[in-house]
Amino acid sequence: MTLQEIGRQAKEASRTLGRLGVMEKNQGLFAAALSLMEGQAEILSANEEDMERARKAGMSQGLLDRLKLTPERIAGMAEGLRHLAALEDPVGEVLSMKQRPNGLVIGQKRVPLGVIGIIYEARPNVTADAFGLCFKTGNAVILKGGRDAICSNQAIVSCLTSGLKKAGLDENAVQLIKDTDRAVTQAFMKMNQYVDVLIPRGGAGLIRAVVENSTIPVIETGTGNCHIFVDDSADFTMALDIIDNAKTQRIGVCNACESLVLHQRIAQAFLPLLKERLDKKQVEIRGDETACRILPELTPAAEVDWGMEYLDYILSVKIVNSLDEAIEHINHYSTGHSEAIITRDYEPSCRFLNEIDSAAVYVNASTRFTDGNEFGFGAEIGISTQKLHARGPMGLKELTSTKYIIYGNGQVRP
Amino acid sequence: MTLQEIGRQAKEASRTLGRLGVMEKNQGLFAAALSLMEGQAEILSANEEDMERARKAGMSQGLLDRLKLTPERIAGMAEGLRHLAALEDPVGEVLSMKQRPNGLVIGQKRVPLGVIGIIYEARPNVTADAFGLCFKTGNAVILKGGRDAICSNQAIVSCLTSGLKKAGLDENAVQLIKDTDRAVTQAFMKMNQYVDVLIPRGGAGLIRAVVENSTIPVIETGTGNCHIFVDDSADFTMALDIIDNAKTQRIGVCNACESLVLHQRIAQAFLPLLKERLDKKQVEIRGDETACRILPELTPAAEVDWGMEYLDYILSVKIVNSLDEAIEHINHYSTGHSEAIITRDYEPSCRFLNEIDSAAVYVNASTRFTDGNEFGFGAEIGISTQKLHARGPMGLKELTSTKYIIYGNGQVRP
Repeated sequence: MTLQEIGRQAKEASRTLGRLGVMEKNQGLFAAALSLMEGQAEILSANEEDMERARKAGMSQGLLDRLKLTPERIAGMAEGLRHLAALEDPVGEVLSMKQRPNGLVIGQKRVPLGVIGIIYEARPNVTADAFGLCFKTGNAVILKGGRDAICSNQAIVSCLTSGLKKAGLDENAVQLIKDTDRAVTQAFMKMNQYVDVLIPRGGAGLIRAVVENSTIPVIETGTGNCHIFVDDSADFTMALDIIDNAKTQRIGVCNACESLVLHQRIAQAFLPLLKERLDKKQVEIRGDETACRILPELTPAAEVDWGMEYLDYILSVKIVNSLDEAIEHINHYSTGHSEAIITRDYEPSCRFLNEIDSAAVYVNASTRFTDGNEFGFGAEIGISTQKLHARGPMGLKELTSTKYIIYGNGQVRP
Repeated sequence: MTLQEIGRQAKEASRTLGRLGVMEKNQGLFAAALSLMEGQAEILSANEEDMERARKAGMSQGLLDRLKLTPERIAGMAEGLRHLAALEDPVGEVLSMKQRPNGLVIGQKRVPLGVIGIIYEARPNVTADAFGLCFKTGNAVILKGGRDAICSNQAIVSCLTSGLKKAGLDENAVQLIKDTDRAVTQAFMKMNQYVDVLIPRGGAGLIRAVVENSTIPVIETGTGNCHIFVDDSADFTMALDIIDNAKTQRIGVCNACESLVLHQRIAQAFLPLLKERLDKKQVEIRGDETACRILPELTPAAEVDWGMEYLDYILSVKIVNSLDEAIEHINHYSTGHSEAIITRDYEPSCRFLNEIDSAAVYVNASTRFTDGNEFGFGAEIGISTQKLHARGPMGLKELTSTKYIIYGNGQVRP
C-alpha cells in the first residue's frame, strides 16, 4: 500500500464517517473494543516480538516499560474505547444561527476535521486511544507510530479494523503506515491533499521535527516548563503541599512543576521549609545566587536551568523582588503550558491570571490538573501549547472544525 | 533594524497590548485614522514613487490600479479604522466557567493571539486594514508587504505609529519589514520564537509559498473554485439570477462562481436560457461532452477546467445524472470555499448542506455572500479554506485564542 493510496482511502472514508450518526459511531467503538479483547493473544505475541527486538537493541528500562503490553493494559485500551462511547458527540451541533437583514439565515455547524494524522513514538496504547478519539468525532485517522512498536501497532490496528468491519463500518477509518522509513514520514508530513491536520504525540524532539517539516497544519502538543510562584502573602502549608504535589506526584509528565519562583520577602523563611519537605522525596534544588546565599547547601542554578523541562527529581528556584519580576521571568522562560501562583491577596491573583501567557494559569492549585480528564472533558488527545485552534487540554471538540450553512430564497449580492 | 529586533519588539508590545482596555484600543484606532488623514500628502507622494517605478517596470493596468492610492482611498482606510472602533471587542470574554467536583473553578477566557505576521502583495490598503484588525484584538502585527508597494507601506505605517504615539500607546504594535529580500521573508516565516500566527493575503502562489515554507502556524486564506449545482427541481428564474450574480457581479474575487453543475433532467431546457443570459455579459461557457451535444456552439471543457479558478468571464458546465454525482464532482474539484445548490426540494437541500465539504454551503443564494461584512462580522481579515482554527470568513474573534484560568483553594492531585 503506497502512502498515496492510504491518503486517498482515508479521504474517502472521512466522507462516510462524517455522515455517521452517534449510534453507529458508538457501535463501532464497542465492536473495536470487543475485537481488542478477543485479539489479546495476537496483540501480546506481537508485542513480545517488539520487546524482544528492543531488549536486544539495549532499550532502557523506562522505554521498555512504555512499550510493554499486558492483559491489563489491553483491557485498559478497550475500556478507553467504551468510555468514549459514553461521551457526548460534538459533531452536528449548530453553534449559532442568525438571520441577516437580507433574509439569509446563516448558521455555523460543528463538523469533523476530515483526516487526522498522528505521529507518535513507542507507546502502543496511543494507537487505540487516537483511533477512538478520531472515530468518535467522525474523522478518519492515519497513524504513524514508532519503529520500535511496529508489530504491536499492526496487531492493534488489525483488531480495530476487524471490529469496524463486523459492525458494517468502513475499515479505512483507521490506517497504519507500516513503512517506518524516515523518508516516508517526511512525505507523510507533506500530504496536504489528503490530510487536514497533523498531531505529533511524544517528546520535544519529535514535536520539533513535525513543526519544522510539516506543510500540513500542525497542533503542537506540549512540552511543559511549568512554574509555581509563591507570593509573599502565601499560606506556607498550602504552598508546600502544592509544590510537593506538582513536583513529585508524577515526575515524567508535562504538567509537573519544574521551576519555583519565590518572593524575596518570604525566601529566608520559606526556603528551609521547602528544603526539608523536598528532601523527603530526594528532590535536588538548584537555586539562584540569592537562594544559595540563604541555603548554601543548594546546587547553584546555571542560566540553562531556567529553561529546562527536567522530568526528574530536580527543581530550580529563582528569587524575585516583585510580582512584576515574577511575571516577566515566567513569561520569558515558560513553554506556555501551566503556571500557578500561591497567594492570599486579591490583586496578585488577578494580575497573574491576566498577565501570564500560558495555556492554563492557576491560583492556589497544583499545575498537575492540566489534563483533559481533570478538566472534565472525559478524554484527551494531548495538551496544546500553541495558540491556534486549541490551547490547553484537547478533548473531542478540539478534533472538530465548523462550516457555515446558509439558507436563502434567491438572494443575490447587489 | 534586524528581523530579530522586530520580533522581540513585537513580542514585548504584545504583552502591553493584551492588557489594554477597549477604550484605549479605540482611542488608538481613532488617533491612527486621524494621522492617516493628516499624512495624506506624504502617503500620496510615496505612492507616486511606487507607481512611477511600477510603470517603468511595465506593470499591468490591473495591478497598477491595485497599487494606486487616491485621497478617497486614504479616507477609506481611515474610515475602516474608525469603523473597527465601533465593533465589539472579543478579548476578555469568558466562554465558559464551571466548578469541578474537587472545587476547582475552571474558566476559558478569550485572549489575543499575541504576535500576528501578515504577508501580502501590492495592495497598500491591506497595511492599514491588517493593523486595525490586529490592534482591535490586542495583537501586535508584523507586516511584510510586496516590494512594489514598499514606499506606500512605509508612509502608511509611519502615520499609524505616529498616531499611536500621540495616543500614548506602544508604537511597536505595528512594524513593517522594510527589507524586501526573499531571504528575509524566508527567515520571517521561521520566527516561531516571536510570531504566533502567519496569515498570507494574496494570490494562490503566495499562499502556497507560505504554507510550504512557514514553520509558524499558518491560516490559509483561500482560493475559490466555487460551484453552483442546479437541481432538477430548481426554479429557472432564480437559478439564472443567482448564476448571473455569482459569476459576473465581480469576477476577480474568491467567492465568484467558476463552475456550474447541472442535473441532466433539466440540462436540455436550461442550457439555452443560460447561454442567452450569460451572452449579455460576454461569459464564455466551457461545457462537458453532454453540454456541447445540447449546445454545439459551447467551447469544450478540458479536464483542467474543472479545477480552475478563472477569475474571468468564463464558466465551466458539467452535466450530472444525480445529486450523488454532483456532490462527488464538487467535493473532488472544489477548493472548499463556497458552493450553492438551487433546488425546490427538501431532501437535496439537506444532503447538499450536509455532504458538501466546504467552508460555506448555500441553498438558493449566491456564493458571493461569503464575506465577513455580509456575514455580519463588521470586518474581515480573509476567508479561511482550511479547517483548523477558523473556516470561512474571519472576523475579530478569529484573531483571538483562549486560555484556561483556574481558581483553587489548595487543591493537589491525588
